[in-house]
Amino acid sequence: MLIAVPQTMHFDAPLALTSGASIRAYDVSYETYGQLNAERSNAVLICHALNASHHVAGVYAGKAKSEGWWDSMIGPGKPLDTNRFFVIGVNNLGSCFGSTGPMHVNPDRDDGQVYGADFPVVTVEDWVNAQALLLDRLGIQTLAAVMGGSLGGMQALGWALQYPGRLRHAVVIASAPNLTAENIAFNEVARRAIVTDPDFHGGHFYQHSVVPKRGLRIARMIGHITYLSDDVMNEKFGRQQKGAPTLPEGALAARGDPSPLDAGAAAYKYSTQDVEFQIESYLRYQGDKFADYFDANTYLLITRALDYFDPARAHGGSLTRALAVAKAKFLLVSFVTDWRFAPARSREIVKALLDNQRDVSYAEIDAPHGHDAFLLDDPRYHSVVRAYFNNVAQEVGV
Amino acid sequence: MLIAVPQTMHFDAPLALTSGASIRAYDVSYETYGQLNAERSNAVLICHALNASHHVAGVYAGKAKSEGWWDSMIGPGKPLDTNRFFVIGVNNLGSCFGSTGPMHVNPDRDDGQVYGADFPVVTVEDWVNAQALLLDRLGIQTLAAVMGGSLGGMQALGWALQYPGRLRHAVVIASAPNLTAENIAFNEVARRAIVTDPDFHGGHFYQHSVVPKRGLRIARMIGHITYLSDDVMNEKFGRQQKGAPTLPEGALAARGDPSPLDAGAAAYKYSTQDVEFQIESYLRYQGDKFADYFDANTYLLITRALDYFDPARAHGGSLTRALAVAKAKFLLVSFVTDWRFAPARSREIVKALLDNQRDVSYAEIDAPHGHDAFLLDDPRYHSVVRAYFNNVAQEVGV
Repeated sequence: MLIAVPQTMHFDAPLALTSGASIRAYDVSYETYGQLNAERSNAVLICHALNASHHVAGVYAGKAKSEGWWDSMIGPGKPLDTNRFFVIGVNNLGSCFGSTGPMHVNPDRDDGQVYGADFPVVTVEDWVNAQALLLDRLGIQTLAAVMGGSLGGMQALGWALQYPGRLRHAVVIASAPNLTAENIAFNEVARRAIVTDPDFHGGHFYQHSVVPKRGLRIARMIGHITYLSDDVMNEKFGRQQKGAPTLPEGALAARGDPSPLDAGAAAYKYSTQDVEFQIESYLRYQGDKFADYFDANTYLLITRALDYFDPARAHGGSLTRALAVAKAKFLLVSFVTDWRFAPARSREIVKALLDNQRDVSYAEIDAPHGHDAFLLDDPRYHSVVRAYFNNVAQEVGV
Repeated sequence: MLIAVPQTMHFDAPLALTSGASIRAYDVSYETYGQLNAERSNAVLICHALNASHHVAGVYAGKAKSEGWWDSMIGPGKPLDTNRFFVIGVNNLGSCFGSTGPMHVNPDRDDGQVYGADFPVVTVEDWVNAQALLLDRLGIQTLAAVMGGSLGGMQALGWALQYPGRLRHAVVIASAPNLTAENIAFNEVARRAIVTDPDFHGGHFYQHSVVPKRGLRIARMIGHITYLSDDVMNEKFGRQQKGAPTLPEGALAARGDPSPLDAGAAAYKYSTQDVEFQIESYLRYQGDKFADYFDANTYLLITRALDYFDPARAHGGSLTRALAVAKAKFLLVSFVTDWRFAPARSREIVKALLDNQRDVSYAEIDAPHGHDAFLLDDPRYHSVVRAYFNNVAQEVGV
């Protein structure tokens, strides 16, 4: 079993941000797995999405259920094999999991208060810049690959545009060249739920010893709906009632029912506020759990980084022109049931790369799980990634 | 121009509800348009969805912008022609627009307090029963048709099941035989936003002279996202920034851009809380407007009526068996971009009716507007409804 050891790198020089602001001094949390080879050619950087961190793979010593968020993908003998690659997980600025963020002391104040809502808006481009500085300090000039899913995929794409000479491959999974209006809309509703929670206090709730948990719960519930496909939600929950007896396997078929929707139908409670259906119970549970550990200001920052990402914007809306600078080879993966970052959005990136005669592989995986599929271990998906990294390994000689 | 006159019918006899509770005495608000013929054979009942009322068509005398919610569909010479049909719009119990609901005085209390959260849970079946009692009082035994969209379509379906001998036709538009897990999930998030608003006070906020506006705003924003299609949202708002200059017609094409997404790109504000994109501004506006007039308890009641509707439930999950009792002829209409009540859900109803050898027409309209399309005047959609009612008119001799 891979044992993960979180590390922190301190940076004294200010980081200039896209917005024009800067972060004066900061820490970046990271973890590494596997060994950097003598040629320093086998490093792979993993970028995280909304609710994740530098803890990508392995477990913490002596801590049960502490698997990294992409542990099914990364480790000894796994699709991204840490026996061959030196893998780096990095936590982004503005996070609440280690790197400098809203919960840290604001060095611009002399009263010792934390940043809170004063933490500057950070973009995908800023994160990529900070990641590049971390790699400088780790003595890694060129990455074998940068890989990420969803918002992490945007960072992998950003690497190919901002540091085209520093990566051989970009692996962009379940991602998009920018958010649609609907994506932004869901983010906005989540942000409004947080910001209008009376416990938010304009983002300076820490001073009031409260947390805007109501808003965080709503934000997370909305998120969960958009991570899953309609089909998998029907399959997992359907119209099953909370507390209804579970029928034994095969019972539905035996009863001749065509649909599992009424599995274990019990009397309705006829209540507007009590949990009636399993899906309600699931969402409330996920919301409560999230509100217990996630930072409200981090949620605002990360959803905004998603909203702002749009490399075509500086090129009159042309993604083809935006990607002309990229040199890396690309693997793109999408999932047919992902309605948050639909395959059509990945195909836009594929097309723009092909317009530029770039080397691009693309796999559209028929997995049922929606956007969440990128975190799960579908065998077709994993074999695509495994095959790709086998080729990368040969290319860098590991 | 059709002038609408709201009317109210009082009922002294208690209404027994599906839940086992009852409403002691109540008012039902309604409007009628056109003339009931001598044979009393030309009456059409219109059932409303979440955010609507008995004010279906026409305008109120001397009141600007007071068109009924389905005025494009119903009126003199319109698809449902009030020169031929006697059309009845009815407001459902639990509403906040006239019929008895949470904002009315609770007769079970002697302190004059309103129902608030004590208003009993009402179902589609209960509404249909109340509508039937109203028709009794209006002296109408048999309806030429019952028509509704979305939740209104569920009521039209309910009529065919509860009073099969009292309607000739059921017109079920953009509806479903029950909600999916995803539908319930969106309802639940909206309800949690309302119920966890500190101004909700367990549903008895009226006594505190406050309104849970934060929760209502979030509920409405979520609703709006699900009413529109992804495509129409991109077309209408895309990634357009708030306050950015609007480009003249044709400017994008002239610039050779393939996509309207960057129309009028201006500098980003880099803010997590200010409006940056037009879609945010639209959603906030819709949320604010809704919170000013809609009742929070009504929102809970109506979303729950949606959740509970499931005629197949009493028949082991078989919609075919549930619809065996129906005698009416059916028109079903769905819209290809409606992801809230997708065409596949209408097709389930069509299939179950055909299984029972019922007379059913079905139109799947390729309109871009998502669920909202049922309220708009797409010419293909309106011509289908017009042709259908021409036949109904011949059948009843008007």
